Amino acid sequence: MKKWTLGQLAEHVKGSVHGDPKAVIESIATLESAQAGDISFLANKKYTNLLATTKATAIVVAKEIKSEANLLIADDPYFAFSQIIILMHGHRQHPQTGISDKASISDSASVGKNCQIADFVTVSANASLGDNCVLYPGVFVGADTKISDNCLLYPNAVVYDKCTIGKNCIIHANATIGEDGFGFATHKGNHHKIPHVGSVILGDDVEIGANACIERGTINDTVIGQGTKIGDSVVIGHGTRIGRYCLLVPQVGIAGSAVMGDYCAVGGQAGIVGHIKIGNQVQIAAQAAVINDIPDGQTVVGSPAIDASKAKRAYSLIEYLPEMRKKIKDLEKRLDSK
Amino acid sequence: MKKWTLGQLAEHVKGSVHGDPKAVIESIATLESAQAGDISFLANKKYTNLLATTKATAIVVAKEIKSEANLLIADDPYFAFSQIIILMHGHRQHPQTGISDKASISDSASVGKNCQIADFVTVSANASLGDNCVLYPGVFVGADTKISDNCLLYPNAVVYDKCTIGKNCIIHANATIGEDGFGFATHKGNHHKIPHVGSVILGDDVEIGANACIERGTINDTVIGQGTKIGDSVVIGHGTRIGRYCLLVPQVGIAGSAVMGDYCAVGGQAGIVGHIKIGNQVQIAAQAAVINDIPDGQTVVGSPAIDASKAKRAYSLIEYLPEMRKKIKDLEKRLDSK
Amino acid sequence: MKKWTLGQLAEHVKGSVHGDPKAVIESIATLESAQAGDISFLANKKYTNLLATTKATAIVVAKEIKSEANLLIADDPYFAFSQIIILMHGHRQHPQTGISDKASISDSASVGKNCQIADFVTVSANASLGDNCVLYPGVFVGADTKISDNCLLYPNAVVYDKCTIGKNCIIHANATIGEDGFGFATHKGNHHKIPHVGSVILGDDVEIGANACIERGTINDTVIGQGTKIGDSVVIGHGTRIGRYCLLVPQVGIAGSAVMGDYCAVGGQAGIVGHIKIGNQVQIAAQAAVINDIPDGQTVVGSPAIDASKAKRAYSLIEYLPEMRKKIKDLEKRLDSK
Repeated sequence: MKKWTLGQLAEHVKGSVHGDPKAVIESIATLESAQAGDISFLANKKYTNLLATTKATAIVVAKEIKSEANLLIADDPYFAFSQIIILMHGHRQHPQTGISDKASISDSASVGKNCQIADFVTVSANASLGDNCVLYPGVFVGADTKISDNCLLYPNAVVYDKCTIGKNCIIHANATIGEDGFGFATHKGNHHKIPHVGSVILGDDVEIGANACIERGTINDTVIGQGTKIGDSVVIGHGTRIGRYCLLVPQVGIAGSAVMGDYCAVGGQAGIVGHIKIGNQVQIAAQAAVINDIPDGQTVVGSPAIDASKAKRAYSLIEYLPEMRKKIKDLEKRLDSK
Repeated sequence: MKKWTLGQLAEHVKGSVHGDPKAVIESIATLESAQAGDISFLANKKYTNLLATTKATAIVVAKEIKSEANLLIADDPYFAFSQIIILMHGHRQHPQTGISDKASISDSASVGKNCQIADFVTVSANASLGDNCVLYPGVFVGADTKISDNCLLYPNAVVYDKCTIGKNCIIHANATIGEDGFGFATHKGNHHKIPHVGSVILGDDVEIGANACIERGTINDTVIGQGTKIGDSVVIGHGTRIGRYCLLVPQVGIAGSAVMGDYCAVGGQAGIVGHIKIGNQVQIAAQAAVINDIPDGQTVVGSPAIDASKAKRAYSLIEYLPEMRKKIKDLEKRLDSK
Repeated sequence: MKKWTLGQLAEHVKGSVHGDPKAVIESIATLESAQAGDISFLANKKYTNLLATTKATAIVVAKEIKSEANLLIADDPYFAFSQIIILMHGHRQHPQTGISDKASISDSASVGKNCQIADFVTVSANASLGDNCVLYPGVFVGADTKISDNCLLYPNAVVYDKCTIGKNCIIHANATIGEDGFGFATHKGNHHKIPHVGSVILGDDVEIGANACIERGTINDTVIGQGTKIGDSVVIGHGTRIGRYCLLVPQVGIAGSAVMGDYCAVGGQAGIVGHIKIGNQVQIAAQAAVINDIPDGQTVVGSPAIDASKAKRAYSLIEYLPEMRKKIKDLEKRLDSK
């Protein structure tokens, strides 16, 4: 097994060592599970007490942390630790299958250099793949869809027709991109299907979680901005535009024609209604229900969502409603009897 | 590119023209993104001000809208606009693959006329497909399942055994129909699997969203009525019966043995507990939690769900709970000190 | 059609007969839909009145139920009834395909005895399957993944690399096991992907619903304990450990690094934040939002989740907030005017 000294790791992540730079590191672990030879990290100051008991040989920490342990001090400890994981383990290696005879690739499709296309993959008419793409078994790429360089599609991921996938995108297993949106014209009680003329456009460096669904637009395209990461089982409605570098945690749902700015974060199971505008750097808590526009920089919590500065206390008081109601009755009685 | 006059479009949708019936239309667009040559539509009166600034050559509107712009006046503007989209763009054209040699079709299965069965499709023993069905790659049709005429199954959609799919149904990618319900008999702490003897029956004209799941029934069938549309990632529990012409938006969850009437609409992420009865024409808001029967025609909002006439104001007051609690304390002090 | 006497069925489930042990039973049905020849069951005492009107030839009931009908009395009626369903219908029979020539099985993979591997299945390098496994079409088994004896993977289920699946597990269609967790190190606004070195380990007798997602761990493994059953579209976050014999109903979401004990039950659409500890025998209601540790044996309800003994009344009072607020104002006025 390959080994590194703490000093080497510090140099790799542009950090500094407190303690023994010659300490030998072989692997990574959490503070609780670490053994000798492991490097760990302290993500949250509230766990600082674990530094006293961890068996890790060294710990990646922020500048302000003091300890007798071997420390690798970094400006951004979690990022430094992630660089160490990449150094030690790398990213997943993919099967070097070349282009399988058991894949089904249209004569009119174009395939870039050095692609790995597994068995049972379908690349439809006039679709194009850039260089270095990896398509696992069962992947479907629809007609006229463009997949840019260095994309990675895991098993059974489906991209419908006429979609555009940027460079370096990752689409996890069983995700669906570009299905028709939930769009019907209800006329005399019958729901008539509306053709979805819009498409889906993913910017560069987007990651789509397993079983997530990105609807294509009815008229305008559905757009996911560069560097945005979307979790498992998220659903994005037709014509919605998500900005750059957003994080949408699993099971989030965003209805159609919503607009979200850049650098937003949305917690698990949160829902956002359609046709509203979310600013930049907005934080939306898990299970929140967003029904109104949100300006830049606001954090909202709750269903319905309100400003976080009020929400935590307000929602925690639901528990006291029976007591409050009783007190109101008591007050009424006391006043009546005066 | 094909072109139409406004007069031709009005005739097509049985509407009337206000303005120039010879205005030439080439495409569709939203009011904000429209350019000369586009036709757009006004779906919601609150956006009437956009009529003054849109660059659209004409706009589909309801009778009561007044404007100097070229108008196509229709009784049901959204339906009229959807007819224009269909006229101009049509519905998706599917690859005319015939029956692929790379599909796996049981000798005991029957396949109707003019079906398109793509590579890597499985049609199991004794399954039957009607005429004009389109099965995209990776679709699985289980044993003894019947798929009626004109059905469309997108890539990697799965229909388990012994299900019945009506005519003109659309099942989107990665949807699952007919899996075993979440049914276990817990005995001495161990959860024993119950065979699911029931099936799934979809009526005619049903559409099932990507990654949606329709559980088969334990004893009785799970039934989705004619013309009902189900969004992405919806889960319908075992033995539940949904009526005709309902709309279930993405991420809705309905537990087992519930009954829903006709013409209901359920908002995103709403949940309905099992074994309850929802009437006809019921509206359930997004993220609502329905735990009791709902009579015909009621609209409910919130978790727990209450009548919409009360709910909007009631839930909006959660924000004021801290203030209310403080006022109660103040009142108590004032009374104490009298 | 095979027939049984009520006496034979009682013997099979170790119950006793009240009424005619020679009554002939041919099938199962619910109380409402039963016809002569059917056996039904009473799951919930509140439906006892149905015993008077059901056409069932016999009903499985608990000891304390009294009726003139033919009764099969059992200690655990639902379990007894499930044994009768199994006796009459058995579990699903799977196609005996052997190992298909159209499956893609790596030379370095190992396959146990008596496996059924359908067309379009992929078993990757160094993967291993135990004896008697059934893999439906489109299933993907990643490199170095171990699937133990008697497992059942439905169509298009995906198991990524290096996962471990215990004996007798069932994985439904379009489920995803072992995808990368939602883990990014955000540095200067950009979200850098963290390799997920951890894996997924399913214990014996686990069932995973259709379209469910079990993320692999970042450092530690994601673990699902023996006998735990997970519903459709559930998402389990990276590094989370679920104990044994838990029930997680459809659309539940549990964030990363959470720990749940044994014998817990979680209702539909409930969410649990990451890094918290749920004890044993905890009950979490549908749509609950769990943001704090929960001790053994507690039942919680609501978003945010509070103890069930308070929650039902507290949440039901949200409806009365407008009235309460008005009363507070009235009290203030009355006091002001004194």
